[in-house]
Amino acid sequence: MSSLRQNADKIINSSLNAVLPDRAVEKALEQFQGNGGRTVLVAAGKAAWQMAAAAVRVLGKVDDGIVITKYEHVKGEIPGVECYEAGHPVPDQNSFDATEKALEKVSGLDEYDTVIFLLSGGGSALFEKPLIPGEELQDITKQLLACGADIVEMNTIRKRLSAVKGGRFALACMPARVYAIVLSDIVGDPLDMIASGPAYPDASTCEQAEAIAEKYQLKLSSQVQELLKQETPKTLSNVTTQITGSVRELCRAAQNAAEELGYETVLLTDELCCEAREAGSMLASILKTHARSGKRCCFIAGGETVVHLTGTGKGGRNQELALAAAPGIAGIPNACVFSVGSDGTDGPTDAAGGYVDGSAMEYLKKQNIDVFTVLRQNDAYNALKATDGLIITGPTGTNVNDVAVALLDE
Amino acid sequence: MSSLRQNADKIINSSLNAVLPDRAVEKALEQFQGNGGRTVLVAAGKAAWQMAAAAVRVLGKVDDGIVITKYEHVKGEIPGVECYEAGHPVPDQNSFDATEKALEKVSGLDEYDTVIFLLSGGGSALFEKPLIPGEELQDITKQLLACGADIVEMNTIRKRLSAVKGGRFALACMPARVYAIVLSDIVGDPLDMIASGPAYPDASTCEQAEAIAEKYQLKLSSQVQELLKQETPKTLSNVTTQITGSVRELCRAAQNAAEELGYETVLLTDELCCEAREAGSMLASILKTHARSGKRCCFIAGGETVVHLTGTGKGGRNQELALAAAPGIAGIPNACVFSVGSDGTDGPTDAAGGYVDGSAMEYLKKQNIDVFTVLRQNDAYNALKATDGLIITGPTGTNVNDVAVALLDE
Repeated sequence: MSSLRQNADKIINSSLNAVLPDRAVEKALEQFQGNGGRTVLVAAGKAAWQMAAAAVRVLGKVDDGIVITKYEHVKGEIPGVECYEAGHPVPDQNSFDATEKALEKVSGLDEYDTVIFLLSGGGSALFEKPLIPGEELQDITKQLLACGADIVEMNTIRKRLSAVKGGRFALACMPARVYAIVLSDIVGDPLDMIASGPAYPDASTCEQAEAIAEKYQLKLSSQVQELLKQETPKTLSNVTTQITGSVRELCRAAQNAAEELGYETVLLTDELCCEAREAGSMLASILKTHARSGKRCCFIAGGETVVHLTGTGKGGRNQELALAAAPGIAGIPNACVFSVGSDGTDGPTDAAGGYVDGSAMEYLKKQNIDVFTVLRQNDAYNALKATDGLIITGPTGTNVNDVAVALLDE
Repeated sequence: MSSLRQNADKIINSSLNAVLPDRAVEKALEQFQGNGGRTVLVAAGKAAWQMAAAAVRVLGKVDDGIVITKYEHVKGEIPGVECYEAGHPVPDQNSFDATEKALEKVSGLDEYDTVIFLLSGGGSALFEKPLIPGEELQDITKQLLACGADIVEMNTIRKRLSAVKGGRFALACMPARVYAIVLSDIVGDPLDMIASGPAYPDASTCEQAEAIAEKYQLKLSSQVQELLKQETPKTLSNVTTQITGSVRELCRAAQNAAEELGYETVLLTDELCCEAREAGSMLASILKTHARSGKRCCFIAGGETVVHLTGTGKGGRNQELALAAAPGIAGIPNACVFSVGSDGTDGPTDAAGGYVDGSAMEYLKKQNIDVFTVLRQNDAYNALKATDGLIITGPTGTNVNDVAVALLDE
């Protein structure tokens, strides 16, 4: 294995480790100090069980606790914590019942008590307690979808029909303090969007909600009309939030790892959102220009790229990004580009991402593989397999988007 | 006008000025020292007249000289220099006659004499003296095209059928020294490609030429078969080459201008070659991430992007790049992205490029212009016109590709 590939693997391992739920929670709890009273743990989302287990490990014990996660995601008992599984991505009665239990656990706390609230992707469905019957909520969702309402409009209405969204969970915890640890899976970390922000002040207003109902002529019961008039909290003085395991952290970890290996680093962006193959091409252009500098350098771009399917091959956005960089760096010794999805599964494949270096094009040519044809067929997996360029990590248990890295040795 | 737009305009002006043929020649001649003998000037290409005029202005006088440029590109008399116009992009008899005259002027020079050789885009057609009849050359070109030969194969054959290409012009100047100033219009500045490298050692070999003739079963006269056996020069000890006015210089000038305005700069690449709109989107992502840093920074990406037409609107690759950045930087005060073509004409429009800042999306929305629809229609010109985002410079007389810049004020 080349030293470049070894360095790539080191960077990949370090950055993925930094955003694993366990490590992320451990790190976030370094700052944590209780307030003298009880500690209640509430964890919701796809990584809830892992986060809760890590938190209890760090804290030693909690006075009460609850985990609400996807079916088959509870991996064992956690001392002092009740674990529930529920519907995702569509909430079911188990979601509602478990969320009701969580609300019971945080009611009656006093100002010395603390709620440790662990939130991860999928929390929107798993952590929900509608203030109206489920069928009515479904009907309103359907009406909004049918008239073409956008996601902000949808959320403005739906937050007001929930007992926990739009900051209302934090309100329910009062006067206890809420220490929220959020494992972010949305680029840019919009806290009001992640699980519809149960512990985050809501920026939308009743006036906006009523304007949306008017604009789309929604058919609403008098109960719903009444709920739309109930304001969500605009400030939440009892909440401290730690965003952790975000794509930003993934990128920073990649940057730190590269610096430790002696590379001069440039963190380009942690909000990448363009076409995967074009990002790969641009990273290759960057390396091509800097190849003349004689420096060991490293460019990092994290985020969530997109792929427009034109073929029926096997691949994922990270694999396409990497493969598309191959022509640009062809023949440059000691240049490589790799990209990896933090969940360890890039597209419907067993690879987490892809890696190419300056010799990849030569290997592909020898095997009569044309990169442009492969990209048209969205078949990056097989091309990368042929150049030993697949990055395989197995599922990681986290999901904070992707990081792409362009490396240059002297 | 915003201070950000003023800074953008300053950067644009500085960088375009740096690559104007006049300025490029002046700069390259700063290094020039004669060798005591005669100075003969030979200028070929679309910018030949301008480059020659600038050279004579700097040098005071030349002992003899010739300009070979496109029809209607001679703008007046230059003391001591004969000016000819000829066919482009297809060479004609005037190309051959004028090139013959140039060869006469450099024959019989001694080791103290210097040939100042000014080369610009279009030189391949304008500066040509075939060693075989024109019809035969055309026939071979057609054979090569018909059998799908690539550009490298074409050049390997054609260089051997020319009296000036593949380093042979420099050979003809011996023992005089050749001081070549090349205004590069190809990304990466491949000196053997620009006008087929009249003053640059040729990497291709007779064996390769004969293998190509064999591979494609070319029908060749015995004269041509003989010429394919004549080797091109592999070293040229009498040539000094200054590449000037390249996209690299365009990017460096933008970088210098930004630094003078107090920005921290990162030259990402001068070999950009991806889809225009995706480069714009990626630059916007970069600004978005760095907007949090509180620093004044500037990211530069030069090269030649591509546009895949899906509509029939008005625009160019620079305008598309800029417009595509608008959604990404929407709402970020003091962020802007602009892109400009050094020739001053971006696509079939009167604009050189486009500019967007953090408020562009708001202006577009007010006028009911949807960026994604506009990009589908390839109609960036009209959208940018509506936001005062067109960059108009008029034709500049140079062509060294494009530069895109992303700026961030505190």
